[in-house]
Amino acid sequence: MKIRNIDFIKFTFTFLALVFFEASYSQNKNQIVRLAKLVINPEDLKNYQIALKEEIETSIKIEPGVLTLYAVSERDNPNHITILEIYKDRDSYNLHIKTPHFIKYKDYTKDMVKSLELIETDPLIPEMKIK
Amino acid sequence: MKIRNIDFIKFTFTFLALVFFEASYSQNKNQIVRLAKLVINPEDLKNYQIALKEEIETSIKIEPGVLTLYAVSERDNPNHITILEIYKDRDSYNLHIKTPHFIKYKDYTKDMVKSLELIETDPLIPEMKIK
Repeated sequence: MKIRNIDFIKFTFTFLALVFFEASYSQNKNQIVRLAKLVINPEDLKNYQIALKEEIETSIKIEPGVLTLYAVSERDNPNHITILEIYKDRDSYNLHIKTPHFIKYKDYTKDMVKSLELIETDPLIPEMKIK
Repeated sequence: MKIRNIDFIKFTFTFLALVFFEASYSQNKNQIVRLAKLVINPEDLKNYQIALKEEIETSIKIEPGVLTLYAVSERDNPNHITILEIYKDRDSYNLHIKTPHFIKYKDYTKDMVKSLELIETDPLIPEMKIK
């Protein structure tokens, strides 16, 4: 009876571990991870940065499915911008591009953007965070 | 006397707010944020990915100054890898490149890497995290 109890506990723990692993794996495998590479007209850079900052801050604050939008400017070419975009899943992305703040940003910045390249990617470690 | 007390409280709060803002700003402004762009020999990609994953996981686990190493493979060119690297400050970076796990990774992968470009960047929102 004692051994059976231990077996039952072992089974329960293994089962729960598998359930949590599967839940975590499923959650991560649906993520959309993208690099957006933009070149901005140098004369519009300051206004573009203000608009992008506002768009990102609003998205992160109010959209649970937008996991990050981490934007950087190249030090030697500040008008070359890369954004690491992580969405929870396809639905979150589809919702994002229909939000008023995204549409406002796209419309306001459309003549500031010289080029935009969207690169679909696969993360090496999907559960990676920023400390 | 009552008014003076209120003034003192106001002053104290303002002072503390400034101290915290300055501390947070100083912390972020010393960050090193980089994009590493690598092209890997396609025949070495699997081994390279294993080595990079191990190097990243060790760095994040044991180096407090390595804030993130978020690596992605381009879906259409999986041997094109981009890493968003965030270090707490210059000292953390200098420590990182002298760690045994980093030196092991560099040595093991040196013939797998066709090209490596390191791009210094400035983050638009330095306090941005991944949810």
